Amino acid sequence: MDVTTRQHCEALDAADPLREIRARFAPGVPGTLYFDANSVGAMPLTAPQRLQHLIGEWQSLRRRGWSESDWLAGPQRLGAKLAPLLGAAADEVVVCDTTSINLFKALAAAVQLRPGRHRIVSEAATFPTDLYVAQGLAGLREGVTLHLLEEGAAIEPAIDDDTIALSLSFVDYRSARRHDIRALTRAAHARGALVIWDLSHGAGAVACDLDAADADLAVGCGYKYLCGGPGGPAYIFAARRLHDAIRPALAGWMGHAAPFKFTTGYEPAPGMGRFLVATPAVLANAVFEAALDIWAAVDPRAVFRKHDALGDLLGALVDRGVGGPGVSVASPRAAERRGGFVALKHAGGAAVVAALADAGVIASFRAPDSLRFGLSALYHRHVDIWDAAARLGEVLRNETWRAPKYQQAKAI
Amino acid sequence: MDVTTRQHCEALDAADPLREIRARFAPGVPGTLYFDANSVGAMPLTAPQRLQHLIGEWQSLRRRGWSESDWLAGPQRLGAKLAPLLGAAADEVVVCDTTSINLFKALAAAVQLRPGRHRIVSEAATFPTDLYVAQGLAGLREGVTLHLLEEGAAIEPAIDDDTIALSLSFVDYRSARRHDIRALTRAAHARGALVIWDLSHGAGAVACDLDAADADLAVGCGYKYLCGGPGGPAYIFAARRLHDAIRPALAGWMGHAAPFKFTTGYEPAPGMGRFLVATPAVLANAVFEAALDIWAAVDPRAVFRKHDALGDLLGALVDRGVGGPGVSVASPRAAERRGGFVALKHAGGAAVVAALADAGVIASFRAPDSLRFGLSALYHRHVDIWDAAARLGEVLRNETWRAPKYQQAKAI
Repeated sequence: MDVTTRQHCEALDAADPLREIRARFAPGVPGTLYFDANSVGAMPLTAPQRLQHLIGEWQSLRRRGWSESDWLAGPQRLGAKLAPLLGAAADEVVVCDTTSINLFKALAAAVQLRPGRHRIVSEAATFPTDLYVAQGLAGLREGVTLHLLEEGAAIEPAIDDDTIALSLSFVDYRSARRHDIRALTRAAHARGALVIWDLSHGAGAVACDLDAADADLAVGCGYKYLCGGPGGPAYIFAARRLHDAIRPALAGWMGHAAPFKFTTGYEPAPGMGRFLVATPAVLANAVFEAALDIWAAVDPRAVFRKHDALGDLLGALVDRGVGGPGVSVASPRAAERRGGFVALKHAGGAAVVAALADAGVIASFRAPDSLRFGLSALYHRHVDIWDAAARLGEVLRNETWRAPKYQQAKAI
Repeated sequence: MDVTTRQHCEALDAADPLREIRARFAPGVPGTLYFDANSVGAMPLTAPQRLQHLIGEWQSLRRRGWSESDWLAGPQRLGAKLAPLLGAAADEVVVCDTTSINLFKALAAAVQLRPGRHRIVSEAATFPTDLYVAQGLAGLREGVTLHLLEEGAAIEPAIDDDTIALSLSFVDYRSARRHDIRALTRAAHARGALVIWDLSHGAGAVACDLDAADADLAVGCGYKYLCGGPGGPAYIFAARRLHDAIRPALAGWMGHAAPFKFTTGYEPAPGMGRFLVATPAVLANAVFEAALDIWAAVDPRAVFRKHDALGDLLGALVDRGVGGPGVSVASPRAAERRGGFVALKHAGGAAVVAALADAGVIASFRAPDSLRFGLSALYHRHVDIWDAAARLGEVLRNETWRAPKYQQAKAI
């Protein structure tokens, strides 16, 4: 990428087909550049009025919100709006619960779909909560074991005829390395195993193409690149071909075929409905839907293209020294191998991220040495990337990060 | 109860020590009386400003909300505020997830705490989702079976040396019959079994006295009597004596002893923290906390006393014919045997509830014949009970419920 001046970035922004979209998000504190799309995405400007509407329904409708408003249909409605971003069909995604809870559902479904098999295969460097969820399931379900691959080990040889499923982070949370969903799904299917993807660090940033890859099950969170609000609802995907065979381990009335018949025995709802458990998180869904309605206005392919370009740009600026001395790109160079953020590397680690925050650029740190810049094609401009790199350059050239107050900075 | 006139109700209201509290809730549509505290409680007036504050944090802090605001501590902070209402200690309750998910956690904990035992005992008439949750667990965990007691069957004889736990609704969702937590806990403990209570239809309305009853585990929802907002977060209680021995089946990073160390192996957090799984529902917690801060201003015993009196009053008015012809009290007469609502019975069923809604009184219906009036000591006045009974009397005397438009009314 040949971008040598800030003016060049301005020209790219002027030609950006998504340039109008950023006006639909709250800008945050003036002068601050937020590169934490990998953690908490920006707020859709309509979020407060969506909440206000919901608050009004709560006041006036009260319990009739369940029957007279659209509260109960939220999980499916939001799932259908989210599906195109994942490369899934509208009836293959529901919005509900949290990523970890949804991963438990997916793992338990895989266990049930592959009777007689015992191994869940994952990577030791997967985002830890995904490992904890699998460990919790293995503690409950006799015979299920978790096989962890050391970092860098090839995955395909670890898949055997005893493998229930691969449970993988689509994107590594430290390096942004992106797995090849299509290739790993094919490899797993060749041994009769399933694959469960945690898309949290990819969805809304890069293409997942779940259906094109013949993917089985996937989960992810709504509050990172998708801008669904801090701690907002998560989602779960299952390929349509699997739906009928899944009898949920987390069974609840909202996933029942006839929830208001109040029958004693559980019967799964048709399709993805069976993955629902309890009363939907109405307020949180209203906020997430504000974001999904922005997503509905953009072409996902344009989003992914721009996201790739923003990541390439940050890498090029660091290579060129705009980001200052001692810093290098730690995430994959090829955009198609990279997830939602760009990881940089500098010996100062968390202290650099802390000093950079005081310089008005919000990034995040993960041990041992990952300075993460979460990029959003919806609200970042090319000049924002330039400015972030330039401010990083100042922090590193002036060595402000060496100040004692930054040395206690921790990852959170 | 000897209340013969509306004026008498006014006098009771004037002497009510809780009379100022109702001003802290949104009144809803003028002229409408909401008796759906058993479904969606009233909105605390401060809920919108709490949301506004949170929205502001989202905009400006973004990911730093996790470190610089109080987002992460929500589950414990809200749990501590809720605990006195349950008769629990502050460190025995956390607010998180949904009632069904929390019940799964509690059932799985019981299974783990009682190795070698196989039976979960419940009642066929328990709120169905609680049965579905147990069925889901039994499908996943070999050897666990669900034993259901037919309606009216004595519970104590069903507890044997193979019983893991009783899983019971504290309050029956149709009749409002309240179980005796203390007696059933004692009976279960005598056989080495645990008891898991779903408090949803009792907490915030009547005394649960969990610690005084030596209770083991309990769950419940935040959005009924507790006024935590539609679909808002639920809670889970575990007696302190059990904490250290519980290794959660739903394990996640927020329940890890050191979530930000990102270690590969799960280690439970101390105490109730281990029941947390994923990132807290920040927006929903802000709303629930608005309600809990109202609860903190009242004496729970005064709440329970007034709640009993309101229920007694509604029964007395129905007995006296104020509620019109053909209606009778279906819930227990003795307040200490009754949960959060009063169930009436009329042959018109759901049609009566629908016609009553058009007369400005919101109640709810559950098959086969329960007309439920959810009572709140925080925002209902004695005159509201009078007016509700009087309007019911008009609907029944005028037989407006027989109009064709009401005959299609369903329970939801």
